[in-house]
Amino acid sequence: MADVEIVEVGPRDGLQNIQKFIPNNVKADLIRRLVDAGFTRLELGSFVSPKAIPQMTGIEDVIAEVMPLPEGVRGMALVPNTIGAERAMKAGVTSLIFVISMSEAHNQSNVRRSVDASIEDLRTLLEQVDPAGRLTMRIGLATCFHCPFDGVMDEKQVLSTIEKIVALREGMDLTISDTTGMATPDHVKRLATRCLDAFGGSATFGFHGHDTAGFAIANILAAMEAGIRSFDTSVAGLGGCPFAPGATGNVASEDVVYLFQRLGLTTGIDLGKLIDAGTMILEASGVRHASHARAISRKRLFADLTGQRPAEGVMG
Amino acid sequence: MADVEIVEVGPRDGLQNIQKFIPNNVKADLIRRLVDAGFTRLELGSFVSPKAIPQMTGIEDVIAEVMPLPEGVRGMALVPNTIGAERAMKAGVTSLIFVISMSEAHNQSNVRRSVDASIEDLRTLLEQVDPAGRLTMRIGLATCFHCPFDGVMDEKQVLSTIEKIVALREGMDLTISDTTGMATPDHVKRLATRCLDAFGGSATFGFHGHDTAGFAIANILAAMEAGIRSFDTSVAGLGGCPFAPGATGNVASEDVVYLFQRLGLTTGIDLGKLIDAGTMILEASGVRHASHARAISRKRLFADLTGQRPAEGVMG
Repeated sequence: MADVEIVEVGPRDGLQNIQKFIPNNVKADLIRRLVDAGFTRLELGSFVSPKAIPQMTGIEDVIAEVMPLPEGVRGMALVPNTIGAERAMKAGVTSLIFVISMSEAHNQSNVRRSVDASIEDLRTLLEQVDPAGRLTMRIGLATCFHCPFDGVMDEKQVLSTIEKIVALREGMDLTISDTTGMATPDHVKRLATRCLDAFGGSATFGFHGHDTAGFAIANILAAMEAGIRSFDTSVAGLGGCPFAPGATGNVASEDVVYLFQRLGLTTGIDLGKLIDAGTMILEASGVRHASHARAISRKRLFADLTGQRPAEGVMG
Repeated sequence: MADVEIVEVGPRDGLQNIQKFIPNNVKADLIRRLVDAGFTRLELGSFVSPKAIPQMTGIEDVIAEVMPLPEGVRGMALVPNTIGAERAMKAGVTSLIFVISMSEAHNQSNVRRSVDASIEDLRTLLEQVDPAGRLTMRIGLATCFHCPFDGVMDEKQVLSTIEKIVALREGMDLTISDTTGMATPDHVKRLATRCLDAFGGSATFGFHGHDTAGFAIANILAAMEAGIRSFDTSVAGLGGCPFAPGATGNVASEDVVYLFQRLGLTTGIDLGKLIDAGTMILEASGVRHASHARAISRKRLFADLTGQRPAEGVMG
């Protein structure tokens, strides 16, 4: 058992923001490399309309190539509605992700309906595709802290929305998300603490962060202090917030794995294999997004992790 | 009085790593803009050999252009030895910076002498140029956490070196420095706490961080938790660690000012003027280093700080 769980979101949240179509066999290669690096939970893709997100065209082919995943590895897929959920289940995916924005303005912009309507959609989805509660559901709670339209979010309002979602079913897994990467660590710690205090008995919580303002690592540590032990990250820092041009996007898996290893906590992830997977997908996508850890020479990174000093020093 | 002090190091620590010579009148313009933005303590340059650091050629001209600084603003200059200190004082600078590395290997690489020899140099400098204790001395404690040669530093050894330095004179100001940007927040909090506990009665302490591993903001907050209230930052993230190619270098003043403003703490700095100063020097230097805050649109940044929402939302 690892001390902290790192959930890799690159194959879905990372790739969906890339304009250039990545061939589906390359996506499958990425997933296999990430599984080989040690991730036991990762996003495989989205079952959305190819018109809305062309990058996810033929997601069934990607899933078919990587299935079955090794025992103990859970592949998740985002679904926007019952049709998507049925497609995902037909493809053999039993862990679904459904996103609801805490901000009315952002939810309208994303899915053109109110937050309450999205909660009703989720209730319908659960009743129709999973009446017996056999699926694993992960609910992405978008814009928990900050919205591109409304700015800093009201904590009370966010908590009351989360309460409605938690009430839908026992045992759901929710990710408190800093969608824009503009949350501050004090806010993250406060909201995470209140979520765990109020709903920790009937639901589990992870944290999903972006590095737009450079606060991602501080926010992760703030969530840790509140008691969160599961973190969404994206290989090579792929992804990003479409509302903040030039921003660095999803916090990079490499940075978070390196952080925890330096803190002496186990993640179960092989940092070398993760860096190689990132190199492959950066080359395939032509994207420049990258992690901080990638800017540090491999020799340097591993010397610090193992404590083994090469006699001549590590300058690069 | 501001809640936290931000010490701007761009005109010295930032510029000294830039290959292209920045005209001295541009350096003076940068200093004037930074003073206008509200910094009350900032590095003006180094009195070093122009052969060692060509960027500092003619530093006397820069100082002459900006002197006298407005009342209440302290301009500091780095000096490597007594000759440098005498040059600085002749130019009218009364706040000196002297750097000693906590790592033997790094100190040898920097100044080709042992740590103890550097401490003796400082003692000589103080006795020769300031027997009456009229100067303000800031001692940069380099590689407090991590060294490019020796990796993670031994805390006991670092504390014993700091003890020797503190003993030289009452009332010195020391900056606990993460020179490589590879320190972890737990380490920063621990060492800062131990420094304040052991030497807080006879010296003051600031924290100097780099963002190589993406931990800079988390490290600043860790230092805050330990009780540190003074932070070195560099406009536009200029500077950097010559030992980590591609690393982001000094933590950007914009990011730190934005962080504290979002946390509701006063810094005395006008973020808009600071961003403008950064734009000027980035254009003049042709350097791509930048802060996270610069990637966020101005409209967005200020909407979040003031809480005033434009009716149409802030997308950019």
